[in-house]
Amino acid sequence: VTTEEPAGRRLGKIGSGRMEAFSDGVFAIAITLLVLEITIPEGAGEDLLDAFLDQWPSYLAYVVSFATIGAIWLAHNGITEYLDRTDPGFIRLNLLLLMVVAFLPFPTRLLGEHFGEQSPERVAVTIYGLALLAASSLVSVLWRYAVHEKLVRPDAEDEDVRLLTKRLTPGLAAYALIIILGLFLPLVAVLAYLAVALFFIVPVGLLRRHLFG
Amino acid sequence: VTTEEPAGRRLGKIGSGRMEAFSDGVFAIAITLLVLEITIPEGAGEDLLDAFLDQWPSYLAYVVSFATIGAIWLAHNGITEYLDRTDPGFIRLNLLLLMVVAFLPFPTRLLGEHFGEQSPERVAVTIYGLALLAASSLVSVLWRYAVHEKLVRPDAEDEDVRLLTKRLTPGLAAYALIIILGLFLPLVAVLAYLAVALFFIVPVGLLRRHLFG
Amino acid sequence: VTTEEPAGRRLGKIGSGRMEAFSDGVFAIAITLLVLEITIPEGAGEDLLDAFLDQWPSYLAYVVSFATIGAIWLAHNGITEYLDRTDPGFIRLNLLLLMVVAFLPFPTRLLGEHFGEQSPERVAVTIYGLALLAASSLVSVLWRYAVHEKLVRPDAEDEDVRLLTKRLTPGLAAYALIIILGLFLPLVAVLAYLAVALFFIVPVGLLRRHLFG
Amino acid sequence: VTTEEPAGRRLGKIGSGRMEAFSDGVFAIAITLLVLEITIPEGAGEDLLDAFLDQWPSYLAYVVSFATIGAIWLAHNGITEYLDRTDPGFIRLNLLLLMVVAFLPFPTRLLGEHFGEQSPERVAVTIYGLALLAASSLVSVLWRYAVHEKLVRPDAEDEDVRLLTKRLTPGLAAYALIIILGLFLPLVAVLAYLAVALFFIVPVGLLRRHLFG
Repeated sequence: VTTEEPAGRRLGKIGSGRMEAFSDGVFAIAITLLVLEITIPEGAGEDLLDAFLDQWPSYLAYVVSFATIGAIWLAHNGITEYLDRTDPGFIRLNLLLLMVVAFLPFPTRLLGEHFGEQSPERVAVTIYGLALLAASSLVSVLWRYAVHEKLVRPDAEDEDVRLLTKRLTPGLAAYALIIILGLFLPLVAVLAYLAVALFFIVPVGLLRRHLFG
Repeated sequence: VTTEEPAGRRLGKIGSGRMEAFSDGVFAIAITLLVLEITIPEGAGEDLLDAFLDQWPSYLAYVVSFATIGAIWLAHNGITEYLDRTDPGFIRLNLLLLMVVAFLPFPTRLLGEHFGEQSPERVAVTIYGLALLAASSLVSVLWRYAVHEKLVRPDAEDEDVRLLTKRLTPGLAAYALIIILGLFLPLVAVLAYLAVALFFIVPVGLLRRHLFG
Repeated sequence: VTTEEPAGRRLGKIGSGRMEAFSDGVFAIAITLLVLEITIPEGAGEDLLDAFLDQWPSYLAYVVSFATIGAIWLAHNGITEYLDRTDPGFIRLNLLLLMVVAFLPFPTRLLGEHFGEQSPERVAVTIYGLALLAASSLVSVLWRYAVHEKLVRPDAEDEDVRLLTKRLTPGLAAYALIIILGLFLPLVAVLAYLAVALFFIVPVGLLRRHLFG
Repeated sequence: VTTEEPAGRRLGKIGSGRMEAFSDGVFAIAITLLVLEITIPEGAGEDLLDAFLDQWPSYLAYVVSFATIGAIWLAHNGITEYLDRTDPGFIRLNLLLLMVVAFLPFPTRLLGEHFGEQSPERVAVTIYGLALLAASSLVSVLWRYAVHEKLVRPDAEDEDVRLLTKRLTPGLAAYALIIILGLFLPLVAVLAYLAVALFFIVPVGLLRRHLFG
């Protein structure tokens, strides 16, 4: 603690460990709250099986959102693993990312509730896609910020840094395309969102090793 | 970090500690959210005691699900305790397990709400049993994967590994039988699910020591 | 890991740290979920201030339950601080305690919703008191179990152990008395529950020091 | 453990690490529960886009509350970072702060639901402001208590301590002024609450460096 570093600025000096713990908490809670968005309308009465099966869009939305938040958590881990330290800007960007991730249960509910209704499903799928786009953009921004501000561990190979950057980027283009696709083929768009999440969750290298290895 | 290990694959390298913390978070949240599924219908009015007691299926479902998630948490601890390291496949299987565990509050609510209604209770008990079967299958798959991929600590005795494998397996057969039983005797099935969870929570050795020791 | 300690029994060997983390998670979630039980009836319309103030029983119930879970968390910390190790029985008793603590948001909602209604408020206050009695009994049982099974640190002074035992016990008698009191004077009982929680939260020694010291 | 320090008082001796973990848990949960307060009224039917956009006060309330809890979390980190140790009084004050923070989702819902209704919006904005004032007052009290009771690390520079004190204080005056402002210009008040949170989240020094640096 020197006089060059006044207390006001120190407010932003969060240890990397505590920032990770707080982030993990928000990821874990957001991913677990998703289930609260699944409801069966009252008065299902005798036809519980039908009523249960009728909620398939909610289950699909649950799976897609769970996979997406899981993928973001994995990417977040990938980023923090390379970090040497955090700075106030990183902590703030991270809070912004958490704000969008914690919001995801809401578009998930919209998707589950309105899927199958002609016009609303397009609206719901579009809102959902925009939320996913925002979340994955912020993951990408967070990583680029860390690289730009030299928060990355000095011993990280340039090759690694470039590969992680490359890996985080294509998601954005994919999301933008799927949002447009969703205006015409909502169900295909939802399945495509799942595919993007699985692409991040199941690394290509891993798949290749298991399928062809 | 060598060139044999590109950044893309490193995305999957989650430290065992952080994976445990995230998993514990999801277990703790899912187990605590169960209470939100208990509701007393509006307009209970003057007969609150009756209305409260009428919800006994919800309390039973709460206890069974709490015990089951508790048992899965214990088994998960048993597994991670033997782990030397994780690999990308383990982290993904673990995410899949968490997805099913985090889903359990939903079938728990169905069970609590529809128990006592002739036909829906059979549907609810069956859905509930399938969810428990899925969760415990994934615990078993997770452990077998860890053994198969040699993630287990080298100093773990073969005997121990065999015993843990043996202990995790019979639950699957039990769940399959109880699901069929539930089609005819729903209440008996629910009590049997509780018995399975307690069987895992209260180790036989411990019981024997306390009862006969 | 020796052959005297088979894998089946090892399932119960949870490190003290992980048990504390899981418990802290459940305590933190249960205490934070309490707010979800506060609702203002739809159609409050223009009289929002009146509608807001009319919910005073919900705010009171929130404060009492928050203070009680906070007190249980403090007591749980007091216990685990003296622990040298855990054993399978301790872990199971702890799960039972968490099951009751995680249930508290439900009686809290009953209390908030039905206070002020002649007959239901007696029912709600009694159910609430029984839940608090169950929770504090289990805290006491947990501590006695730890002492009896010699899980307490060898360097803990006998005096300390006796004092902690003494401190945890009177709560039970107090809760039993207040439950009976609540049949006649519900509001007084609720305030008495708050007083018990504050008695645990604010140690007498601390008060004396601040008031007279 | 000496005889000068009886077990009763030891109940209050929570390690700083565990108090931080519990606090971080409550902060993370409260901030993530905010999303559950956003709902679209049933029967939105074909006009989902309109219904979605009509909820803008809920999104605004979500952002303001997320930013405020985030700012309080940052300030809490700032405080605990300077702590050498905790004492029973600090733990209790901290519980009180957590009680108010965990309550914030409720006024957030009121704000989101009643904004745009002539008279109720003034009530909702005022209640919201009072809750924020209470939370930030308690942060300030917590810090002053720590300084007064000499819980601060001996190596903390006087300058730093004075600066942190100075930084935590103006918020209170600002909140008091905005509460009065909200009686006349509710929307301006909500935006001002956001500005206060951002003022804490984005340190002036940081902004200056990025904008002019």
